[in-house]
Amino acid sequence: MTVHIITIGDEILIGQIVDTNSAWMGTQLNLIGAAVTGISTVGDGAEDIRGALERASAQADVVLMTGGLGPTKDDITKKVIADFFGVELQFHEPTYQRLEGFFRQLGRTPTAAHRTQCMLPTNAEVLTNKMGTAPGMWFEYNGSVIVSMPGVPYEMKYLMTNEVIPRLQEKFPVQAIYHHTLMTAGEGESRIAEKLEEIEDQLPAHIKLAYLPNLGYVRVRLSGTAMDAAALQMDVEKEAGRIRERLGDLIYGQNDESLEENLGHLLRNRKLTLTTAESCTGGYVAHLITSVAGSSDYFMGSIVAYANAIKQDLLGVDPATLETHGAVSEATVREMVSGALKVMKTDLAVAISGIAGPGGGSPEKPVGTIWMAVGNATTTEVFKLQSGKDRLKNIQYAGNIALNMVRKFVLKHY
Amino acid sequence: MTVHIITIGDEILIGQIVDTNSAWMGTQLNLIGAAVTGISTVGDGAEDIRGALERASAQADVVLMTGGLGPTKDDITKKVIADFFGVELQFHEPTYQRLEGFFRQLGRTPTAAHRTQCMLPTNAEVLTNKMGTAPGMWFEYNGSVIVSMPGVPYEMKYLMTNEVIPRLQEKFPVQAIYHHTLMTAGEGESRIAEKLEEIEDQLPAHIKLAYLPNLGYVRVRLSGTAMDAAALQMDVEKEAGRIRERLGDLIYGQNDESLEENLGHLLRNRKLTLTTAESCTGGYVAHLITSVAGSSDYFMGSIVAYANAIKQDLLGVDPATLETHGAVSEATVREMVSGALKVMKTDLAVAISGIAGPGGGSPEKPVGTIWMAVGNATTTEVFKLQSGKDRLKNIQYAGNIALNMVRKFVLKHY
Repeated sequence: MTVHIITIGDEILIGQIVDTNSAWMGTQLNLIGAAVTGISTVGDGAEDIRGALERASAQADVVLMTGGLGPTKDDITKKVIADFFGVELQFHEPTYQRLEGFFRQLGRTPTAAHRTQCMLPTNAEVLTNKMGTAPGMWFEYNGSVIVSMPGVPYEMKYLMTNEVIPRLQEKFPVQAIYHHTLMTAGEGESRIAEKLEEIEDQLPAHIKLAYLPNLGYVRVRLSGTAMDAAALQMDVEKEAGRIRERLGDLIYGQNDESLEENLGHLLRNRKLTLTTAESCTGGYVAHLITSVAGSSDYFMGSIVAYANAIKQDLLGVDPATLETHGAVSEATVREMVSGALKVMKTDLAVAISGIAGPGGGSPEKPVGTIWMAVGNATTTEVFKLQSGKDRLKNIQYAGNIALNMVRKFVLKHY
Repeated sequence: MTVHIITIGDEILIGQIVDTNSAWMGTQLNLIGAAVTGISTVGDGAEDIRGALERASAQADVVLMTGGLGPTKDDITKKVIADFFGVELQFHEPTYQRLEGFFRQLGRTPTAAHRTQCMLPTNAEVLTNKMGTAPGMWFEYNGSVIVSMPGVPYEMKYLMTNEVIPRLQEKFPVQAIYHHTLMTAGEGESRIAEKLEEIEDQLPAHIKLAYLPNLGYVRVRLSGTAMDAAALQMDVEKEAGRIRERLGDLIYGQNDESLEENLGHLLRNRKLTLTTAESCTGGYVAHLITSVAGSSDYFMGSIVAYANAIKQDLLGVDPATLETHGAVSEATVREMVSGALKVMKTDLAVAISGIAGPGGGSPEKPVGTIWMAVGNATTTEVFKLQSGKDRLKNIQYAGNIALNMVRKFVLKHY
């Protein structure tokens, strides 16, 4: 199955928005064995959209269009599609009813612009968009498929995952593809690759290995293709087993489980509770933990102690410690852990204090110096991270490293 | 001047790399009044590159190609270009000498692959790439221009800034382009569009309006083109003024300023301090605030009170309130504000308590019900948000709405 992606929007052409949708779609399509053979970005003009649609549908089995569906006047995509198929737009009552229900919950009513959003080409199969007002549309045409989706990333992702990908898999059965992703944390991409060099060299031709690094964790993905799905699965799992053995506790999970999800399972199974005491990460670690549904089972809350006064008043950090060692120090994060355990009455606490940047660095403590501690009533373990100069990266990197520290602490002590 | 960008690379099609080059180029070209009319991404195959080059050169005055020039992929792109022009590749001695000098500094000598990099189409005007080994190439053809650059972002940026942009400006004296983006929060895209319908209908032909929505805020962008840059700026600013007047305090800023940056300026200018007391947002609002460099000037810290016990113990919420009204209620967020002000000793506090989902909803309080309050020592204002079913979206939406509430509170009371 070949796919051409068309991204619609003047804001992309003038560089106001980076097109991250196409990369995400490319990844997802690649996972189901579909080959993206081209991506076209065009502006909001009817002629450009029409031209792109004609070229793409001549070249690929599937055309996936994103953007150009907002309720405002810069929306002409639907008309272009209707013209392309030689059909009319007609009012789609079920879509309007869905919108009415949505707005009723908000105590509002749809506007005229929303009525226009319900005008759809007569040959459209409507893909219900539970994340927004513009529906997705699926068209079949001479054995090929054309799909139109909104450009808002979370709406597009919802439609791709729940509607488009399953339909494509059904319509275009391909060679079996099997992936197994091992989630690792604690080492960088090149160290992991070094450890796996021998295994990688010995991989059979139909199985490939890819490293997908991120801030504080690396996904190691095995992908195989073959005609026999059952045999393929066995082959890939065998290699996954070898990698597991080689990497040991660097592996925390599989198949895109996040560190925060994994930690959630560990804590719930052991009936442990957790709190965070955060300075430079400013609530980001708490946000990661609470982005997991059901986290209230093990997460009680946090103290974001950005100012030193809060470190003293709420976490009981000794002013003398702050004076002698500074807020970014082993001594301070140790006291933040003790204080958080006492105040929050949890089994475990993790504390982070560092210099996120871009200002605030010094020769002894440059930007990116981040101290972390995790502990319980009897033991506390510390780690000093030396990160880079980018503020947001430092916060995210520290967040993932902190979660991994808690994970290893739990596995060691419980 | 119209420009078509061609991005070459399999790694972009499979989503391993996000194409940020095109957005950067779009921004730069826009600034000199060039209109990017399309972006095509193709794989590393000769046929695909040739097809894209033919289409692009037929459509636009200028074709800018990036990628496909690495030492391994080298042959393909350059051969395609040479074939396209009907010329041969020949060894370019000055480029080789530059490479030799470059490697001499590193105590090394060029490899055979680097010799291949010096084989260039005979009609190429060489653009010296001081950031890497692959040279840029400039071609003129029937009055139009084709440029080939490496895909490595800092090499491409160097060539664009120092070679391509100045040459384009000289070759194509262009119409001026002027943008003004107004940042709004508090209403959705369609309400904003409704309010601006009359203004939009009356816009002169050379000025266009676009709506760029996100969770909790909408960017409204005016874009104009004309020969006279000074007159154009006045025209666009005049329309921006009308929109400003019409939308009033829905507008919080301009030119892509975020809500958290805007709020930071407001608080710093008024010497106010802020804290957050978060339940369902779990630290996300604190994270937004602290993602701004220098936020320690006005942000003291937060209490993430996920468990009811923490709402009682740390924020002093009355157990009777929780019993009678529930944690997701006006009464609770009001008490969270009072408690946070007392504990954190700040001028302002914002509190959020809601049902992020996917579980925990009830008929009276469905998933997406989120109460918020912002207050100071004397006044507290509340708002009930009815959001949707997606956990992460609810958290992000509530976060932006909360920041906007604080912004409006500050503007009203200080």
